Amino acid sequence: MKKEVVIIGAGLVGTLLSIYLSKRGYNVTVFERRGDMRHEKIAAGRSINLALSDRGIRALEEVGIMEEIKKIAIPMHGRQIHHADGSSAYQAYGKNGQFINSVSRAALNIMLMNLAEENDVKIFFHEKCEFIDWKNNEVHFINGSDENTSTVKADLIFGADGAYSAARLTHQLQHERFQYQQYFIDYGYKELTIPAGENGNFNIEKNALHIWPRGNYMLIALPNMDGSFTCTLFFPFEGEPSFSSLKTKESIAGFFEETFADAKKIMPTLVDDFFSNPTSSLITVKCFPWIRGEKFALIGDAAHAIVPFFGQGMNAGFEDCSVLNGLIDEHNEDWKKILEAFQLSRKPDADAIADLALANFAEMRDKVNDATFLLQKKIEAKFSNKYPEKWTPAYGLVTFSPDVRYSEALRRGNVQQKIMDEVMQMKNIEEKWDSKEVEEKMLGLLS
Amino acid sequence: MKKEVVIIGAGLVGTLLSIYLSKRGYNVTVFERRGDMRHEKIAAGRSINLALSDRGIRALEEVGIMEEIKKIAIPMHGRQIHHADGSSAYQAYGKNGQFINSVSRAALNIMLMNLAEENDVKIFFHEKCEFIDWKNNEVHFINGSDENTSTVKADLIFGADGAYSAARLTHQLQHERFQYQQYFIDYGYKELTIPAGENGNFNIEKNALHIWPRGNYMLIALPNMDGSFTCTLFFPFEGEPSFSSLKTKESIAGFFEETFADAKKIMPTLVDDFFSNPTSSLITVKCFPWIRGEKFALIGDAAHAIVPFFGQGMNAGFEDCSVLNGLIDEHNEDWKKILEAFQLSRKPDADAIADLALANFAEMRDKVNDATFLLQKKIEAKFSNKYPEKWTPAYGLVTFSPDVRYSEALRRGNVQQKIMDEVMQMKNIEEKWDSKEVEEKMLGLLS
Repeated sequence: MKKEVVIIGAGLVGTLLSIYLSKRGYNVTVFERRGDMRHEKIAAGRSINLALSDRGIRALEEVGIMEEIKKIAIPMHGRQIHHADGSSAYQAYGKNGQFINSVSRAALNIMLMNLAEENDVKIFFHEKCEFIDWKNNEVHFINGSDENTSTVKADLIFGADGAYSAARLTHQLQHERFQYQQYFIDYGYKELTIPAGENGNFNIEKNALHIWPRGNYMLIALPNMDGSFTCTLFFPFEGEPSFSSLKTKESIAGFFEETFADAKKIMPTLVDDFFSNPTSSLITVKCFPWIRGEKFALIGDAAHAIVPFFGQGMNAGFEDCSVLNGLIDEHNEDWKKILEAFQLSRKPDADAIADLALANFAEMRDKVNDATFLLQKKIEAKFSNKYPEKWTPAYGLVTFSPDVRYSEALRRGNVQQKIMDEVMQMKNIEEKWDSKEVEEKMLGLLS
Repeated sequence: MKKEVVIIGAGLVGTLLSIYLSKRGYNVTVFERRGDMRHEKIAAGRSINLALSDRGIRALEEVGIMEEIKKIAIPMHGRQIHHADGSSAYQAYGKNGQFINSVSRAALNIMLMNLAEENDVKIFFHEKCEFIDWKNNEVHFINGSDENTSTVKADLIFGADGAYSAARLTHQLQHERFQYQQYFIDYGYKELTIPAGENGNFNIEKNALHIWPRGNYMLIALPNMDGSFTCTLFFPFEGEPSFSSLKTKESIAGFFEETFADAKKIMPTLVDDFFSNPTSSLITVKCFPWIRGEKFALIGDAAHAIVPFFGQGMNAGFEDCSVLNGLIDEHNEDWKKILEAFQLSRKPDADAIADLALANFAEMRDKVNDATFLLQKKIEAKFSNKYPEKWTPAYGLVTFSPDVRYSEALRRGNVQQKIMDEVMQMKNIEEKWDSKEVEEKMLGLLS
């Protein structure tokens, strides 16, 4: 008999996981704290659109839904950098034909829920996980609508309930020697909007991720299917300027006029959005163990919440599902071995992408504007084109090379950065950056 | 009118803090989850004796109890290292006249409780903190004996309830963007005993901290007033050998016979103690913020639990109290300013001693046995004797220099370690370690 599986959380990772497991014949039930976004308007607070890239795509292909998702995905081939003086510059993400995809979180989640239900997964909403009773393999829920409590038996329980996971908290509080770290950066984010132009036209380049880097903070924008862009302001909580310092309509309008003048022109609801949309915080969570014997695992953000600056949160969670699915085959449905292998395999990769994501914030908000950094990228790109088997920038490894583990991408990225530190120290590097000498130097340092 | 102060936890730090505050005229009430150790036998689980050194002594002097405590303190002037072959070696801790003190946790705690009550502090036992209601300034307790709940109003609340602080948990769960990390090392500890010899004689050197370093693990022993020693085995949880691998009387006796033969001879109850005493884990906690406005602060282990390998857990907590007391004067009882200054001042020092303590484990269990390490210590000691104003080893700064902050001790220790790394690379350093050349090299590197 196939196991009874309970998944806590019907977000992106929980629903994808339910599809994988249901397709294998497990009886899968999903419990979601929020309402059903197909019928109810769900309050914001999580990002509206996301960057889907190769690791996530691989998983969506495995469950056979990628063709459908392509219809709602907008390719972004590079970064469009908007300078303070109103000029802009374009930086391709990878080689020709490589791109990431802007997708609507809600649309993607709804597609996954629908596909899950088509595969006999049952999803219950407004069910908040209160407690897991490990002795009796029971999950206790309380219904947010009628306050009824219920107890659900399961052979196998997954906590896929996100960065502030209730499953993780009950796991942690009942676990000896639980390794746990939650880390908040000093920045929050607020979502704003650039509406569609006339006839649903895009007001700025459609097929790019837009960045207004301003040193200590930045604004970004991703395209939506309807011609609008969802903007996100990543901004300090405290200091000058900060969410604390911008308190009046005048100060907000003035700040945007001064700092993001070109964006402000196409953001007619800016001030109202700024007041009505929440300011959210950015958490990194590292913990261990993720599992209990053969009966429980954390997965996705619940196991390893990361900041969004590498566009990998969802992709890492989807890759979790894909890796887990592979391990089910490998260990022939022996769940003790599967879960043990899952956490041992994924923990170093989750730690690596967490660190890469934190480091990428400085790159996005600051360095993309820096002449030395841009020259370094140019040298790397040239070298990588000539010696693709020797050199792929870390961004490419993470985003476009799903066969390279995150931990390996981090390791190789560090090696390459050391080499580039030496290269950038060469005399007159600005003049001779595309010389044979620089190429020889890099080849020498590589070996 | 003086503030009503509630302190959660009647351990070493909670009772010391209550004395400081009561002496200043505050109305102080202390609530303790455990029973009253003056009337009830309290279950073990925390170390039986502790190393009291200068930072702790300074605080005990400030409340006027140090003279009394000296009567129950046993000076330890250095480390007695017991090698596997049965030989032993002595390493002095500091300069002449410098020593640390072995004191009984229970005796010290009882003295502090008695002194607190003499100063009109009220202490309630079996009161477990359930929840703090920040809006109404109320602490909710549940009584462990009769299960009655009670609610206590306070102007000022301190969480002094140790590494697994309930006050910290309620603070954390209700706090936005709380930085939190709990980290367990892969080692646990178990307390064992060397009983007194005939007529209360000490079976091994009384005035030393004894270490049996064995690379990956170690046994230590601190003297007690009655002639006995409390031993602590720091040992891996898993692997070979480990707490997991030693499961039978025979394996335990055999392991000690093989590894700690000299100690085993004077540990007649070894095997029984090994079975009946708990195996405890070793946690490091870092968190922030420690305070809420003018009404709440974590203090001691509750704010910054550390591993015991520098003998500084209690000393750091006592220093917290001393620093806080100084800030009350400095900020003229303005508690908003006092608490803000307290956490800003102490957080870097708490982080530093946490890191120093983790690093010292490797030194105690492994390096004290290593010829290169011992040579380095010899070179440092000679240099430090000649140039005391230029060089004090990190151990001395932490243990005997309470005017040097922990963070400063860590910084200076790192600088000195870098210098010693270079010195130890010198050719034939074994022969010329006390030459003018080495001395000149160190002076050169210092400037």
